[in-house]
Amino acid sequence: MRQVTAKISVSTHGRKLYDISAEVAAQVKRSGLQTGLLTLYIQHTSASLLINENYDQDVLVDMEAFFNRLVPDGDPLFIHTVEGPDDMPAHVRSALTQTQLSIPILQGQAALGQWQGVFLYEHRHLPAQRKVLLHLLGE
Amino acid sequence: MRQVTAKISVSTHGRKLYDISAEVAAQVKRSGLQTGLLTLYIQHTSASLLINENYDQDVLVDMEAFFNRLVPDGDPLFIHTVEGPDDMPAHVRSALTQTQLSIPILQGQAALGQWQGVFLYEHRHLPAQRKVLLHLLGE
Amino acid sequence: MRQVTAKISVSTHGRKLYDISAEVAAQVKRSGLQTGLLTLYIQHTSASLLINENYDQDVLVDMEAFFNRLVPDGDPLFIHTVEGPDDMPAHVRSALTQTQLSIPILQGQAALGQWQGVFLYEHRHLPAQRKVLLHLLGE
Repeated sequence: MRQVTAKISVSTHGRKLYDISAEVAAQVKRSGLQTGLLTLYIQHTSASLLINENYDQDVLVDMEAFFNRLVPDGDPLFIHTVEGPDDMPAHVRSALTQTQLSIPILQGQAALGQWQGVFLYEHRHLPAQRKVLLHLLGE
Repeated sequence: MRQVTAKISVSTHGRKLYDISAEVAAQVKRSGLQTGLLTLYIQHTSASLLINENYDQDVLVDMEAFFNRLVPDGDPLFIHTVEGPDDMPAHVRSALTQTQLSIPILQGQAALGQWQGVFLYEHRHLPAQRKVLLHLLGE
Repeated sequence: MRQVTAKISVSTHGRKLYDISAEVAAQVKRSGLQTGLLTLYIQHTSASLLINENYDQDVLVDMEAFFNRLVPDGDPLFIHTVEGPDDMPAHVRSALTQTQLSIPILQGQAALGQWQGVFLYEHRHLPAQRKVLLHLLGE
C-alpha cells in the first residue's frame, strides 16, 4: 500500500459550480493506483466541494438559485460584513456543502456514479485562486 | 495494512430514510479488520447518506418534514423539471446532506456512537435501486 | 504505512462553535506522521463538525444566527419533542453540517488552509460531554 499527494489549482471567475472531474481523473490516473481511496480537500471557507449531476447544465443553474435564495447576499442578519455582502453567505454556503470528499478508487478510476461529477463551488463573486489538495491511498 | 472493497444495494420504495446500519456492520465484520477506516460512498445525486439518531422513529419523520419544507417539490424556482417535480429537489437535498461518510473501525466494528445509525436517504418518490460502495482499510 | 487512533473529549456549555484546532494539531504531532490522512468522527447526532473561518469571531456569531433562523427551536413542525425544544433542531443542524471530516496530513501537520479552523458545533443548550474519534493513517 502506498500514498500519493497532489494539488489542483482552480482560477474562478465568479459564483458558480466548476466541474473539476477531468482534473481529478487525471490525478488518479497519474497515481497509478488501481484500488484505493481518493480524498479531496479544499483549503478555503468561501468555496466548497460538491458531487452533483453533470449531465444537464440546468441542474447547476437551479442549485445556485436555491442557495442564492436560502442564503441571500447582504442579509441584514449578518454582522460580518467587512469583506463584502457575499462573504458571510459564502461561509454559510460552504458549511452547508462540503470541504472534503472521499471517493473509492476501483479499476484505476474514481468510482463516480454514471451521472456524478466533482464540482468546486465558488461562493464569492470576485475572481479567486482556489486550491484543492488530493490524497490518494491504495495499491 | 490491507484494504477491502464491497457494495451494498438498496431497493428503495419512496422518499424516506432507510437504516442500512446492519448491512454496514455485516461488511465490516466480513472484512475481518480490527482497526481501520470505513468509507461509504453513494453513486447517486438524488439519494444521499446520513448519520442520524436511530432510536426514536419520530426523528426520521421530522427530518423528512424539515427537508420537505426547505426544498419543496415543484418549486417554481427550478427550471430542471424534465425528470419530474421531485428531481431537482432531490439534487438539492443530496447537496445538503452527504454523498460520502467515513467512520473509524475500532475493535472490529464501525465506531458509531450509542444513538447513531447509518441511513440511506432516498429523495425520489418512485422506487429505485441504489448502490453504496464501501472501502475498508486497516489491519 | 501505519495507523494511529485517538480521542478528543470536549465539555460544551451551550450552543455554539468550539474551536478544537489546537487539540487536533496536538494529536497529529503526537502521531509522528509526516504524510497521511486524518479523519475526525463525532459520535453524536446533536453536535457536529465544521471547518470554518477562525479569524473573525463575528463569523461564528453569524453562522449561529443563520442556523437559528433556518432551524428554530420549538418549531411546531416537529413531533419529536420529548427531549426538549432544541433536540430535533439539533439533529437537523447536524444533518446539514458534518459528522465526519478528513484532512490530508502534509509536512507533519493537518493541511488546513490559512483561515481554516476545525470546530465542534454544539447544537444543544445544556452542558454536554462530546467525543470526537481521530483516525490517522500514513507514514
